[in-house]
Amino acid sequence: MSVLIPCIIAGGAGTRLWPVSREAMPKPFMRLPDGESLLQKTFARASALAGVERVLTVTNRDVFFRTQDEYRQVNAFNVALDYILEPCGRNTAPAIAAAALHCARHYGEDSVLLILPADHLIQDLPAFEQAVAQAAQLAHQDWLCTFGLRPSRAETGFGYIEQGQALEQLGHKVARFVEKPDAQTAQAYLDGGRHLWNAGMFCLRVDTLLRELQAHAPEVLESVAQCMQVSSVKQGDRALQVELDPDSFAQAPDISIDYALMEQSTQVAVVPCELGWSDIGSWEAVRELRETDPQGNHCNGETVLHDVSNCYIDAPRRLVGAVGLDNLIVIDTPDALLIADAARSQEVKVIAQQLKRQGHEAYRLHRTVTRPWGTYTVLEEGPRFKIKRIMVRPGESLSLQMHHHRSEHWIVVSGIACVTNGEEEFLLDTNESTFIKPGRTHRLTNPGVIDLVMIEVQSGEYLGEDDIVRFTDIYGRAPAAAVS
Amino acid sequence: MSVLIPCIIAGGAGTRLWPVSREAMPKPFMRLPDGESLLQKTFARASALAGVERVLTVTNRDVFFRTQDEYRQVNAFNVALDYILEPCGRNTAPAIAAAALHCARHYGEDSVLLILPADHLIQDLPAFEQAVAQAAQLAHQDWLCTFGLRPSRAETGFGYIEQGQALEQLGHKVARFVEKPDAQTAQAYLDGGRHLWNAGMFCLRVDTLLRELQAHAPEVLESVAQCMQVSSVKQGDRALQVELDPDSFAQAPDISIDYALMEQSTQVAVVPCELGWSDIGSWEAVRELRETDPQGNHCNGETVLHDVSNCYIDAPRRLVGAVGLDNLIVIDTPDALLIADAARSQEVKVIAQQLKRQGHEAYRLHRTVTRPWGTYTVLEEGPRFKIKRIMVRPGESLSLQMHHHRSEHWIVVSGIACVTNGEEEFLLDTNESTFIKPGRTHRLTNPGVIDLVMIEVQSGEYLGEDDIVRFTDIYGRAPAAAVS
Repeated sequence: MSVLIPCIIAGGAGTRLWPVSREAMPKPFMRLPDGESLLQKTFARASALAGVERVLTVTNRDVFFRTQDEYRQVNAFNVALDYILEPCGRNTAPAIAAAALHCARHYGEDSVLLILPADHLIQDLPAFEQAVAQAAQLAHQDWLCTFGLRPSRAETGFGYIEQGQALEQLGHKVARFVEKPDAQTAQAYLDGGRHLWNAGMFCLRVDTLLRELQAHAPEVLESVAQCMQVSSVKQGDRALQVELDPDSFAQAPDISIDYALMEQSTQVAVVPCELGWSDIGSWEAVRELRETDPQGNHCNGETVLHDVSNCYIDAPRRLVGAVGLDNLIVIDTPDALLIADAARSQEVKVIAQQLKRQGHEAYRLHRTVTRPWGTYTVLEEGPRFKIKRIMVRPGESLSLQMHHHRSEHWIVVSGIACVTNGEEEFLLDTNESTFIKPGRTHRLTNPGVIDLVMIEVQSGEYLGEDDIVRFTDIYGRAPAAAVS
Repeated sequence: MSVLIPCIIAGGAGTRLWPVSREAMPKPFMRLPDGESLLQKTFARASALAGVERVLTVTNRDVFFRTQDEYRQVNAFNVALDYILEPCGRNTAPAIAAAALHCARHYGEDSVLLILPADHLIQDLPAFEQAVAQAAQLAHQDWLCTFGLRPSRAETGFGYIEQGQALEQLGHKVARFVEKPDAQTAQAYLDGGRHLWNAGMFCLRVDTLLRELQAHAPEVLESVAQCMQVSSVKQGDRALQVELDPDSFAQAPDISIDYALMEQSTQVAVVPCELGWSDIGSWEAVRELRETDPQGNHCNGETVLHDVSNCYIDAPRRLVGAVGLDNLIVIDTPDALLIADAARSQEVKVIAQQLKRQGHEAYRLHRTVTRPWGTYTVLEEGPRFKIKRIMVRPGESLSLQMHHHRSEHWIVVSGIACVTNGEEEFLLDTNESTFIKPGRTHRLTNPGVIDLVMIEVQSGEYLGEDDIVRFTDIYGRAPAAAVS
């Protein structure tokens, strides 16, 4: 049998999971109760599959550094990591076409792609492995193979797949795809037993996929093929990074693989399965993963409750007092608080959309922001001062830079720093501090082997992020008006 | 006519207004929408009364500095400020007895005391002045005069005063005091028109008060008289400060003036009045002071609401998203959040009581703590660091001190600091910083004429507030394990 290459599609803004999920920290990065993110879980179950030596990830280039970080923590089998980096989101059809072209070129047209969304949870791993094995066999028989989840309720929020003729013991031909049904139809599907939830997972031989794309969505295939030709490929350690060319990728149609291909082709099969699957589509779905106390509450953080029932309170950093509440979702983050009727947790997306329309920072960013060199967190802003906690990874370095209007005071609370301040260069040890006057060029490097953690206090009349002159940057970002 | 001395009784923990009202920041300090505190409003209306040259305040000595601060901002008539400082709370009877003995000794037995609680709101000032004028006349006629508010609803949370025989045009003799009634009785009182709410305000000639206390509560009078004899009196600028002796004041009975005297005496009158009065007894009462939008909401701070009605959201520092809520109270403070059914806002005290039982800091303290020299606010705590914003008033000084385990890094963001660091003494200007190594004696002074604002970053293995050796302290606090 030919090589199986899991392909993780790390899209999914997850606006219904605001304020934890935000544009710059989308749903795949959300942590579950066990401390792992959805992305890490997806990677772990993909890389653990028999015979897998390489995982391909298609993701936005803005979250590339963070994605690498996440994988590093869970890459137990030391699989090779290929990346296709998108300059913008164009839905799943162009992403999967790019994956197919990439694998055809480097790993052979008979390689088999296993397309996995990174924003779903699968709890039954043996069932997942079994379903993948069946799907791979169907893929070898030239089917575009989907995964259909046996419905456990009359859900109106998902698309359905209707099973047709059986294909040996492996699955069924797909009779048709159906859109999100109304409640009555969903109930009929549940009772009838022939309809399955469309999980957005696929298993496809590369040559089948390219042939069917050529037949049913030639404009997708051609625009992506053109883009791949002008995109840069970087050879990493046993792996390849493709940075898609922005201008030509923007020409690709913005369309899902379901619309573009699956609903058009007659070569589509489905493997019915039960995987302990959840799309974690709302805070209500998150709550269902948690144990509750006898009053039906689940609290993360310190709470004092008086006559409170069926509430989900996630406030790890603050004390919450509650009186006379029932069936509420309370999500507390450093800069934003959500309080929602649990029965209407789908509508949280309305809040996120409203923030997006306003151009509000709380739609896009968290207080903790990921950078190539580590992270920074705005702890506090006030008149004439701003305080950040800065974490720099071993060996990493901020760009050589200068500010016109602010002093920066650096206090090392953990690790060791190498500081360039004008003409001087010196080491700053734990519990030591220094300060950079306005107009001085400066640079911060972590020369040590553990994380450098610093408190930076900025003081001055003007503290905007745009007061930065950047001279050199090892991540290729100079000159730009971004942070450090 | 003899001198009228308003006496502000600044008690009232206000547990139903948690998390804004806390033990170290009790209800009188709570800010109203116009930015003034209840205490400031009480002071302003007392000091504006005709003929008032002096205001006496009986308060806990822990909030003395803050009380002075509050008065300084609103003392438009530059009245003299007498204080009686209690080492512990013993309810109103000992407080009022102390006020009477103080005035008898220094201002004459014919002076008239106007007792005003500091945790009520009075919106109709002309009506207040008129009621005080009537009450003062009755006090001159040897009555213990109370103020009775005409009820506007069948309230079960207040005590009532039943009016007896009319006393000229000035008021009525009190027929009897009655405890908090049940709903039916409260309705009958409202319909009958003879019952008034007991506002806890009194107007009394000092000799009448002392004579009646001797007759009905001799143990209160004697224990407080003994305490006054051994208490220290400090002569200030046109004013006197009495610091009550802790041991002897602790011997005074813990009893209200109503129980100890008013309900016993036959010499009690009442002035019926309508003052635009509120006891601000709950968040529901706070909400009633505010305008609402067409959906019945009032929001302070940034909010995004989706199908939200009749909610009061006070979150000045954070974004709040809300979905599908009705009739909730949401109060957000830097370290604690309250969410309560507005119909049950009285029960917020249960949360405060629970925190008190646990010995939780959020019962006692806010993140901003008042000190004799200014304030400090804990902005952030994390592994190996703690960050404070420190404000030192002009001319004030922190104690000379030393820490064994932590470095302190000081960054001046506004004003100028004089720093003692070991043997050195130097000035630190705005945007400059310095650091104090563990084991170094140090002191911080504001030599300037504007507030000094500093960010202090503590770093080290151990950052407990008890790692302090205090050498000298101009506020008489050394040596003690308190903060700076």
